[in-house]
Amino acid sequence: MRMYDIIVDKRNGKELTREQIAWTVAGYTDGSIPDYQIAAWLMAIYFRGMTERETAWLTDAMAASGDLIDLAAIPGVKVDKHSTGGVGDKTTLIVGPIVAACGVPVAKMSGRGLGHTGGTVDKLEAIPGFQTVLPKEEFFRIVKEVGIAVIGQSGNIAPADKKFYALRDVTGTVENISLIASSIMSKKIAAGADAIVLDVKTGKGAFMETLEGSLSLAKAMVAIGEKVGRKTIALVTNMDEPLGAAVGNALEVAEAVATLQGRGPGDLQQVCLELAANMLLLAGKGDGDIEGCRKMARQTLDDGSAYAKLQEMVAAQGGDTAYLDDPSRWPAAPFILPVKAGTSGYVTSIDALAIGNASAVLGAGRLRKEDDIDHGAGLVFKKKIGQWAEAGDILAELHTSAADKGEEGYRLVAQAIEIGPVKPQPPLLILGRVTADGVEQKLA
Amino acid sequence: MRMYDIIVDKRNGKELTREQIAWTVAGYTDGSIPDYQIAAWLMAIYFRGMTERETAWLTDAMAASGDLIDLAAIPGVKVDKHSTGGVGDKTTLIVGPIVAACGVPVAKMSGRGLGHTGGTVDKLEAIPGFQTVLPKEEFFRIVKEVGIAVIGQSGNIAPADKKFYALRDVTGTVENISLIASSIMSKKIAAGADAIVLDVKTGKGAFMETLEGSLSLAKAMVAIGEKVGRKTIALVTNMDEPLGAAVGNALEVAEAVATLQGRGPGDLQQVCLELAANMLLLAGKGDGDIEGCRKMARQTLDDGSAYAKLQEMVAAQGGDTAYLDDPSRWPAAPFILPVKAGTSGYVTSIDALAIGNASAVLGAGRLRKEDDIDHGAGLVFKKKIGQWAEAGDILAELHTSAADKGEEGYRLVAQAIEIGPVKPQPPLLILGRVTADGVEQKLA
Repeated sequence: MRMYDIIVDKRNGKELTREQIAWTVAGYTDGSIPDYQIAAWLMAIYFRGMTERETAWLTDAMAASGDLIDLAAIPGVKVDKHSTGGVGDKTTLIVGPIVAACGVPVAKMSGRGLGHTGGTVDKLEAIPGFQTVLPKEEFFRIVKEVGIAVIGQSGNIAPADKKFYALRDVTGTVENISLIASSIMSKKIAAGADAIVLDVKTGKGAFMETLEGSLSLAKAMVAIGEKVGRKTIALVTNMDEPLGAAVGNALEVAEAVATLQGRGPGDLQQVCLELAANMLLLAGKGDGDIEGCRKMARQTLDDGSAYAKLQEMVAAQGGDTAYLDDPSRWPAAPFILPVKAGTSGYVTSIDALAIGNASAVLGAGRLRKEDDIDHGAGLVFKKKIGQWAEAGDILAELHTSAADKGEEGYRLVAQAIEIGPVKPQPPLLILGRVTADGVEQKLA
Repeated sequence: MRMYDIIVDKRNGKELTREQIAWTVAGYTDGSIPDYQIAAWLMAIYFRGMTERETAWLTDAMAASGDLIDLAAIPGVKVDKHSTGGVGDKTTLIVGPIVAACGVPVAKMSGRGLGHTGGTVDKLEAIPGFQTVLPKEEFFRIVKEVGIAVIGQSGNIAPADKKFYALRDVTGTVENISLIASSIMSKKIAAGADAIVLDVKTGKGAFMETLEGSLSLAKAMVAIGEKVGRKTIALVTNMDEPLGAAVGNALEVAEAVATLQGRGPGDLQQVCLELAANMLLLAGKGDGDIEGCRKMARQTLDDGSAYAKLQEMVAAQGGDTAYLDDPSRWPAAPFILPVKAGTSGYVTSIDALAIGNASAVLGAGRLRKEDDIDHGAGLVFKKKIGQWAEAGDILAELHTSAADKGEEGYRLVAQAIEIGPVKPQPPLLILGRVTADGVEQKLA
């Protein structure tokens, strides 16, 4: 095979064969195919697209490029959850314990934050003592005994995807549904899940800004899941404003605890319960009835079993659970700045992308991979879209360790919140649900 | 500026600015922009195309990437001629002397052959003693005194084009009219011509196989010429069968001499006269009347002045003119193999591409850049399209230095010539003429 022919085939709109795609991925991973040929190939894919089969073959080949985690030693159906990246998205900290409390094992490998989005590993590391690096045997033991463990992604998961993504990032070839879908799914498949629930964010703070784009991505990923034999459901959820009230690592852990205790923000609770219900459905709970799964998930908040599961996990991974039970233990940030309403009116818009960037500026995130994180930094909303604010009311509180960061963050947040005279429609949270059977739109 | 933005602009169908294009060409030439970004950009151009302005800016930037030859020291309008590459194309050896005989200076830098096409420099070097490498002063002196000199391309002509072409060749981005047109024109512009006549070959042995593609390329190059202030005319000429009867270096020189003496093959003479007439027109001869220029060109064959000009040039560049006057001086090839007709019929097709490859196999061309050339090797057609051949008649004679080369060449040539019962239409030779004023099609 010659890469030249594979480029020209794709350029001319031909469907590539499984062998061509596997050969390309293997050759790029081992360095025998140069960057410039892959760059031309990716741009040809940008213009010509890929069929569902090609996309699945690409996904399989990228998953096979590195370690394939074998979770067979853990009994039960292992369901993974993945979010396409949002602002204030602490759903893993809530959904994981709910699902585990229902008897479905959660063996999760999570990532760190970059740019305007946070990462679950950073959030968990805000808990003093919490270990996100564990030997595989220890990880498996905790999943088996406790029912849930969350560690950082380690080993050599889908190295082809890393190489492809780095190249796409500098060659203008990120924005293609097949490439995005295969990138996400290859990592999930390599991580060993039997089934996958995807939380595809849509809106200003999301990778996909339009509902149409998000639904296309959701459909592409569900199609991949079907083709590679991993049952997949995708929810499309709102990211026009941040999810919940808290953005920032320790602040989000505290909000996750509140939600598991049944007193979290309504939007966050709703999204988490729907994600959890779909994971339970794929794990075979509720006899295939999503309503039954929703009730089951809800029950774990009411009876405290989900929160208990989080406590058990934190303890098993070395974290100090006292910080969960008593949020006043978290050290207060040196600077807490209120952002106040300049005029009276309804909050009509909160630019989630700008808030994510503000949070990073305040110290909660990384602008570059090598940056350190301030676990205490971030912000907490006091008003969200649709709520009334009198002039002078606090809209959000910023937490930071340095005055200059506070000033820059203040400017960004003040610009990101819009107030107007007309009460806006309450935003829909769950905008779509895609299964192998089809698409349901505008659910709630 | 960032290359990323320039890739995305082109990907999204925006017209690039002159500054963006100049910055890209300069950055790629000096190595500050990596291959992979240019590869993605070229593929985006493949799909989105370039406007006439963009194409002219790209041409200018590539011409400016290296030496710009200044021919101002030579009085008169310097008209260059360029062929897009054919088989048996010895037109420069004929057209140059015709034009020079009419008083138009010809200061020509030519290339070597590669693959199935030959190069003028190789052909001239078949003449014992002929020097194709001359100091600039000597080159200029001969042009001024004799009226014509032809040397090999030297110096650093359009190095950007070399880099771009090498990358396009391995990334499936050769086949774009704007990129092809700017590649050719950048070298002509850097070579210093005031005006340019292009011979765009069309057919099986040409870079562009279809008339439509050839006309598009012709139009694109004429448009560039207009935009950069070099008057340009393009002829589209037939390359479905080789031009003339001879293919191979010494064989082609002998055929060029015969043509200058008024006894060459009709197709070759016709194409050469039309190219020469258009060069004369651009040089301001004939008071802007192409018919007048045609007569003037024809006259130089009839009165012997064109052949005399070739003799003068060969002598001035150190070549032995005795080989011109007496073709029997060329050493006979060790093996001369006749290819005979298997059945009686009309020659209906001669695959010029296959003939070009056969000629290279026989020793007349290079399969790789570093290969040596056998100046005596090649083939001579005895029958061309439309002629009747009895079974056993010789269709072509192969000249080579080794029996095994002869055998392989024989196989290729025998397959390349088709014979059928129906007399085919005589092929049109000049299929189009493109000037700044428009397109004339199917001329003769």
